Amino acid sequence: MPELRYDPIRWRWTIISPERGIRPKDFIKEKKEPPPKNNCPFCEGNEDKTPPEVFSIREDKSEKNKPGWKVRVVPNKFPALRIEGELIRKGVGIFDSVSGIGAHEVIIETPNHFLQLQDMEINDIKKVLISYKARYIDLTKDVRFRYILIFKNYGAEAGASLYHSHSQLIATPIIPLAVVAELEAAREHYSEKERCIFCDLLQQEISFSERIIFKNDKFVVWAPFASSFPFETWIFPLKHSHDFSECDDEELYELSFVLKDTLERIKILLNDPPYNFVIHTAPIPRPRPGRPGYWETLPYDYHWHIEIIPRITYIAGFEWGSGLYINPILPEEAAKYLREIK
Amino acid sequence: MPELRYDPIRWRWTIISPERGIRPKDFIKEKKEPPPKNNCPFCEGNEDKTPPEVFSIREDKSEKNKPGWKVRVVPNKFPALRIEGELIRKGVGIFDSVSGIGAHEVIIETPNHFLQLQDMEINDIKKVLISYKARYIDLTKDVRFRYILIFKNYGAEAGASLYHSHSQLIATPIIPLAVVAELEAAREHYSEKERCIFCDLLQQEISFSERIIFKNDKFVVWAPFASSFPFETWIFPLKHSHDFSECDDEELYELSFVLKDTLERIKILLNDPPYNFVIHTAPIPRPRPGRPGYWETLPYDYHWHIEIIPRITYIAGFEWGSGLYINPILPEEAAKYLREIK
Repeated sequence: MPELRYDPIRWRWTIISPERGIRPKDFIKEKKEPPPKNNCPFCEGNEDKTPPEVFSIREDKSEKNKPGWKVRVVPNKFPALRIEGELIRKGVGIFDSVSGIGAHEVIIETPNHFLQLQDMEINDIKKVLISYKARYIDLTKDVRFRYILIFKNYGAEAGASLYHSHSQLIATPIIPLAVVAELEAAREHYSEKERCIFCDLLQQEISFSERIIFKNDKFVVWAPFASSFPFETWIFPLKHSHDFSECDDEELYELSFVLKDTLERIKILLNDPPYNFVIHTAPIPRPRPGRPGYWETLPYDYHWHIEIIPRITYIAGFEWGSGLYINPILPEEAAKYLREIK
Repeated sequence: MPELRYDPIRWRWTIISPERGIRPKDFIKEKKEPPPKNNCPFCEGNEDKTPPEVFSIREDKSEKNKPGWKVRVVPNKFPALRIEGELIRKGVGIFDSVSGIGAHEVIIETPNHFLQLQDMEINDIKKVLISYKARYIDLTKDVRFRYILIFKNYGAEAGASLYHSHSQLIATPIIPLAVVAELEAAREHYSEKERCIFCDLLQQEISFSERIIFKNDKFVVWAPFASSFPFETWIFPLKHSHDFSECDDEELYELSFVLKDTLERIKILLNDPPYNFVIHTAPIPRPRPGRPGYWETLPYDYHWHIEIIPRITYIAGFEWGSGLYINPILPEEAAKYLREIK
């Protein structure tokens, strides 16, 4: 029997309509061979094929924009937003317009063309997370930005235009809707109960246990109750923290471990599918004109986390127009498969 | 210079990031040959390959579930929601669950395997719209339903699993987010100004004129200011009406004309691309337990319309996780191309 599930934190209904006898292998698509290196701009030795780097983790004494790096962050050659210019907000009739100021950077996760994030060693994944954190902290200093989105598109079907393992970061002068929804739900819950809605959710999922994929004393990984996509997976830190960039060294190591573990489960179960992940963290605290203090306090109700979506089903049209999703597998089933894979 | 645009009716930010010199032809993909008829379940003569019809427009004296029809509506063989069962609403921790009661029907638009909606004659398109209306009105009688979504997926990339021209209808016991957002914006605007927000928007777009694609004395077609997708197109009736199914015979004829005209423009400009359209109409007026009168009055602030999305760009990952869209073409440019095509 299908079921409609509502996530009041994401403001989202999903129709969970399990197809009889559906198994993970029914979602598996044919894999293509990785493309050759050719002139891959992300490969070691091709540093001059990208804009100059803004951050890197390097071997001692290796020179900027030369070989010898482990992780390298460069501005996107085709940025969606531009760093130069004045931030102008204006109304256009009933609409709002903000000049397209922002940063759009690429985190090249490894010098090795054929190595993918989930196959890297934990300490090398940690270097990627350290780079996220460093760029995040640096970009918060630009007062024009309200939000910094860190995300990864893995595989062409997930929107990756280059094969070489990389993630991206977009700093925006606005807060994306997905975060606004979560923030408002968190604020309402907090003002009513003086508790974090995500901490409550964590406890709820741990006590229900049927959707848990992995848990240790730092992180919990589960399939959300109202998963919009098959095998959608969330990684939450047990410790309440609104800000990803406040992770200390040990937490980043633990996160590297759990991220690798989760991505490996997805890889094994679904034959190395394309996927996206997005780090959901609080907006950058900023005072607003006429609303002093508002954004300084609000984000602390938030709880950062990572949302992973394997891109294994075709998104039919009406999701876009309706905001209603159809998921052909029960999240409890999906969690069971992912839990048992190791 | 890129620009961020906010649509307060849809609660959606879009990054309009025009690529220099981008032209409609840059979005054109290779077309595949239409598949042969084989055992197409939607073809005339194959009526026994679908569940029995719930509605049809037929030649005189032709028999139900036999050849002789012009439009045929059948339950979806693989429905996302099921018609049988009791509607149960329950809480699961902080989440909500509703049993998956609903209707999922397929509107087969023509008996001809090789004819597509945009290529049909206006009077035959009108028969499709008459079928939408008839099914809509019939399904509103089922008090378990709150919303009826009518939509079309054209082309495999838009989610159509069969080539033969068809659209779909899903009746749900909940109201999809896209409609909730629009309804709340409309209600707020109305309670403040006693005017329909969509009527205001219509007048605004007509006076700005730069985003208008087509206009006659019944309908206006334009590219929305904060288009999330390239060549996104909206069709609005000039007459304020919250309910698509209140269209009379003449209005359905006019709508057939304008829908054909709009889809033809898209077809010519973008080489017959896949597309989706969704009819946005008010929820079915229903009293709510404990809130008498609430839903009886609210929907009248609404203004029904059709949203069309050509599926010509790849949806990269972070849109899903963030609710932030990136559109590589200015809506004013898109409108100009579509306006000048005829």
